[in-house]
Amino acid sequence: MEIERTLREITDRQAITDLIHAYCERFDRNDPDGVAELFTPDAVIDYNPDTPNILGADMASTIAVGLRDLFAASSHHVSNVMITLEGEDEARSLCYIDAWHRYRDGSPDGFLWGRYLNRYRRTADGWRITQLLLQGAGTIDFHRERMHGIGRA
Amino acid sequence: MEIERTLREITDRQAITDLIHAYCERFDRNDPDGVAELFTPDAVIDYNPDTPNILGADMASTIAVGLRDLFAASSHHVSNVMITLEGEDEARSLCYIDAWHRYRDGSPDGFLWGRYLNRYRRTADGWRITQLLLQGAGTIDFHRERMHGIGRA
Amino acid sequence: MEIERTLREITDRQAITDLIHAYCERFDRNDPDGVAELFTPDAVIDYNPDTPNILGADMASTIAVGLRDLFAASSHHVSNVMITLEGEDEARSLCYIDAWHRYRDGSPDGFLWGRYLNRYRRTADGWRITQLLLQGAGTIDFHRERMHGIGRA
Repeated sequence: MEIERTLREITDRQAITDLIHAYCERFDRNDPDGVAELFTPDAVIDYNPDTPNILGADMASTIAVGLRDLFAASSHHVSNVMITLEGEDEARSLCYIDAWHRYRDGSPDGFLWGRYLNRYRRTADGWRITQLLLQGAGTIDFHRERMHGIGRA
Repeated sequence: MEIERTLREITDRQAITDLIHAYCERFDRNDPDGVAELFTPDAVIDYNPDTPNILGADMASTIAVGLRDLFAASSHHVSNVMITLEGEDEARSLCYIDAWHRYRDGSPDGFLWGRYLNRYRRTADGWRITQLLLQGAGTIDFHRERMHGIGRA
Repeated sequence: MEIERTLREITDRQAITDLIHAYCERFDRNDPDGVAELFTPDAVIDYNPDTPNILGADMASTIAVGLRDLFAASSHHVSNVMITLEGEDEARSLCYIDAWHRYRDGSPDGFLWGRYLNRYRRTADGWRITQLLLQGAGTIDFHRERMHGIGRA
């Protein structure tokens, strides 16, 4: 039925948007286990071109050290969320990220303006992230020298 | 009916999101009366640990002085809006706030990255805010020394 | 039917929000033709009080030079999207914009906190922007001296 299909698409968009927001909220509260729960075990996370991609199954242990030792605080502000549903059980999104970081070692605060390109799959436990690619439009005093670009012409 | 319940939840989420946005828009236009209209008279607003909480009924008069004398301009950018409906007539939300302030006295611009934790009630006039708690992840040159924390581990 | 009308309003809001996000995304990727496609030919774009308004039909050629020669990078973070539907085929919105710019000539990064006031019309090809007015709450090191104000009291 057309109405039910439209309603399911709207609630799927809401669930996927909530997933992006949960990622930021748990990251900023230094909750690596909570972050990892949002990904499938086979998810591929690509934060930058200079460190190996992270598998969903290894997410918690991989990011735990940085969350604890690198950042004294962070705040990941997501906006411009554009979701494309692909069939009934898959989706992808492009959203903007404006991220502020305070470092434990007293370095100047780090700023990143960029994008998350994500993919999602509906699982028995609800929508999960299967792929995350971080692109940087630009940074100031950020702890990474190089970022994947946004493909600006 | 299931469809009608789902539609009501979607429109409730929209109305609550509009409420958060109206708070920012009226604050930034220096409209204390407009801000106060968004709260119930018994609402409790907690901006920081160092000044008394504000009652909804006293909101306009309490914030009017600061809006007029402290800020030459401000811009409150809300994102990451996560709403939880609790029964048919109550709700709560966590959202992110990226706030920029220009001061009348020429102090350096103040930046705040944080969160609003709000509660809401459906009234005869529509949804209203019954509780607002501001948490700060971090600040630069902000006019408050201390903020409620975000509970980072 | 009430349900169908509510669903159409929800999907219209989504389409209009996507339009705002597409504007930012194409602007930041230096895609002036892609930006121009989002406007009707008779659209009026008013970025500031010191340069002539731009017609939708002239949008691509007008912004192409600046996108190429002025900016090395930019990132336009939209939030606080407030949409008002006006009848079945027209709408307007107020949203917030937090824009970061890196200049080709090595000038300090430019920051703008402000608002887009847009109008929209449903066309045979979907919703299009018919009017865009940029207002600035404030700027730091921005390439424009003067902006339209937000009407702060």
